[in-house]
Amino acid sequence: MKNYSELNRNELLAEFESVKTEYGHWCSKGLKLDMSRGKPGPDQMDLSTELFELVNLDLGYMNKSGIDCRNYGGLDGLVELKQLFAEIMQVAPEQVIVGGNSSLNMMFDTVAQAMTNGMGDKPWLLQGKIKFICPVPGYDRHFAICEHFGIEMIPVLYKQDGPDMDIIEELIKDPTVKGMWCVPKYTNPDGIVYSDEIIRRIAALRPAAKDFRVFWDNAYAVHYLTEKEDHILSIYDECVKQGNPDLVIVFASTSKITFPGAGVAAEAASPANVALIKSRMSFQTIGPDKLNQLRHARMFTGIDKIHDHMKLHAKILRSKFETVLKELDNSLADLGIATWTKPNGGYFISMYVTPGCAKRAVALCLDAGLTLTPAGATYPYGKDPQDSNIRIAPTYPLTDELANASSLLCTSVKYAVLEKLIEPKN
Amino acid sequence: MKNYSELNRNELLAEFESVKTEYGHWCSKGLKLDMSRGKPGPDQMDLSTELFELVNLDLGYMNKSGIDCRNYGGLDGLVELKQLFAEIMQVAPEQVIVGGNSSLNMMFDTVAQAMTNGMGDKPWLLQGKIKFICPVPGYDRHFAICEHFGIEMIPVLYKQDGPDMDIIEELIKDPTVKGMWCVPKYTNPDGIVYSDEIIRRIAALRPAAKDFRVFWDNAYAVHYLTEKEDHILSIYDECVKQGNPDLVIVFASTSKITFPGAGVAAEAASPANVALIKSRMSFQTIGPDKLNQLRHARMFTGIDKIHDHMKLHAKILRSKFETVLKELDNSLADLGIATWTKPNGGYFISMYVTPGCAKRAVALCLDAGLTLTPAGATYPYGKDPQDSNIRIAPTYPLTDELANASSLLCTSVKYAVLEKLIEPKN
Repeated sequence: MKNYSELNRNELLAEFESVKTEYGHWCSKGLKLDMSRGKPGPDQMDLSTELFELVNLDLGYMNKSGIDCRNYGGLDGLVELKQLFAEIMQVAPEQVIVGGNSSLNMMFDTVAQAMTNGMGDKPWLLQGKIKFICPVPGYDRHFAICEHFGIEMIPVLYKQDGPDMDIIEELIKDPTVKGMWCVPKYTNPDGIVYSDEIIRRIAALRPAAKDFRVFWDNAYAVHYLTEKEDHILSIYDECVKQGNPDLVIVFASTSKITFPGAGVAAEAASPANVALIKSRMSFQTIGPDKLNQLRHARMFTGIDKIHDHMKLHAKILRSKFETVLKELDNSLADLGIATWTKPNGGYFISMYVTPGCAKRAVALCLDAGLTLTPAGATYPYGKDPQDSNIRIAPTYPLTDELANASSLLCTSVKYAVLEKLIEPKN
Repeated sequence: MKNYSELNRNELLAEFESVKTEYGHWCSKGLKLDMSRGKPGPDQMDLSTELFELVNLDLGYMNKSGIDCRNYGGLDGLVELKQLFAEIMQVAPEQVIVGGNSSLNMMFDTVAQAMTNGMGDKPWLLQGKIKFICPVPGYDRHFAICEHFGIEMIPVLYKQDGPDMDIIEELIKDPTVKGMWCVPKYTNPDGIVYSDEIIRRIAALRPAAKDFRVFWDNAYAVHYLTEKEDHILSIYDECVKQGNPDLVIVFASTSKITFPGAGVAAEAASPANVALIKSRMSFQTIGPDKLNQLRHARMFTGIDKIHDHMKLHAKILRSKFETVLKELDNSLADLGIATWTKPNGGYFISMYVTPGCAKRAVALCLDAGLTLTPAGATYPYGKDPQDSNIRIAPTYPLTDELANASSLLCTSVKYAVLEKLIEPKN
């Protein structure tokens, strides 16, 4: 098929008729497919079945420092997991707080703490309108936290190697700008890896607000898809070099390493930030579920075990990503109506279609039985100014389903673009 | 020994010398005992060893509605546990939110939500000075939550069958009074059980503040110590009868049923409150640890199983409580310097010593190697106006240790009281 821009009106009309027929076929199949969330599949979770057997009467319930993990206490988690997360998060073990099953929960609670009790300054809620820098496209749940707390979001576009730092360096001169969301490795959804230069510039930021914090969600720290394992600088080390240790709070979890709903999450920061966070936690809880931490400590006795384990995930995921990419290549490569990412890691393929067509394409998919992340979700307030980005999450469906889903997506994109090209211009 | 009030000065001095010698013996033993927290002992936790074996490849990881408990989702928990907690909490299953391992965490988060986003009205933090009613003596961690958020606490004394409602009915006319803490059954530390009349009067409250909430921490709902099983009215049902369904939020957990650090907690309320709480949770997390919920659902297939299980706890605890009570009886009964509770349930014995002597007695214990809850901890801001209450937590130490600990406590109480009786009056 030729590039759509080279088709005359009659050719476009003919192509539209053909695509409508194609779409009708999809609709008649009664599909029920879901590529909406970055959710591991059952085959991936099966890789961690071992976890079920790692706390019992034979192996016991004591950790290596002799703590009875059944009982109360241990506010900041088991030492074994502090060591493990320290390697993932590129910090020292004593800087790590190991929590429950959700790093999102730790992020939310840290923002909530800033709202009610401040980040070493007045409570954010008592400082009037405050703002966060949101590199886009980004993770919808980060943006949702801001929306929940009434924090104004300032979108800043990603460049090839991280967010546009020229703009950010200007924005932080505003003392009402209190924070920034970052997914530094394999960004959601674009799969961008922050370059050394970007990380150094972030670490060197001198925000007007002393209580400005970078929320560094290293969600995909070890989540490679190919042999090429990208490495990023330690944001914390860079901050220390810049005399800026309190600037950043780092998050990670095993949700996409072991079990999404029953993994272990962690948060790490400077001694001052850790003291602040733990002081709040001491009012909030008596301690995390240490038995589940113990299971994880016994499964991953070192970072090497994690890397080995992630290779098994990569093997499963690679074929899923390839299925989608192959379909996109086959159906859309020549049409000039869409581009997409080929990530080295993370959980998403990010597609950019002809501006003004993403919402329509996603709606068409939904009508035919394929749920995608709502168009716009990757932008603050759900508003993609170009209405162009579509986030594809290939991890959960079976490979067979993925072929269908990708093919339907391609049909829907063509449909939406053709409709727009053909419609009488106003 | 005679009542101290009947002793003349010489007799008091002689008794003090004898008690000092007694205390000296204790100090020389180099004890390391702890009766500070309501913490189950290893023998109690051994009762739930079964939990380790209830999720594995044989039994699977699906709940009865076919949810894969390993994966993301299920914001408000498994249906099995909603049913179970509904019986414990005296509400309908659909009113229950089942969470992680800590009901304290759920209480904290609910107060935090009220601070930042309100309870159906303006955020509490933006309403200026607000206040909570705190029946005393009470649970120190409830008071600590208020302190953390800068909520002023108004202590209201407990009477024999619940808090002094005459005072509370006046206090709630103040629109800055936003909440009240209650432990309705076997209060911490006095072991009081709220009477039907008290519960009905609470349910009938018409606070000036529409966003006033009763935080009903039913921590010891099934935690009996004797054959006498006290029953309380369903606060929620009573609220509904009074046209007051949104007044109360109920909390409970299995922390003192299965594993303190790895149990399951729950929160229940009216449809409006549940919607409000879940709307916040939907920003905070993708869901709780459903595998641990599943373990609990499989261990307790009905409320009867819980009651059977609690009888095993009671058997262990009864002998511990009896050890302490026997020692108190033997050493202090005739002296007129202390009274104490003999609870039917819960985790504490509450002792009242001669006013002005509690802090000193607790300090003497600590110096001799016995950690008790700091005197005053059962009152807001840690200030017992009488300096009289000592909370005794007999559950964690071994029975042998308990005999020593109780005996040392008695010596320390005598010491502190004699010191006061003998000291030159200013």
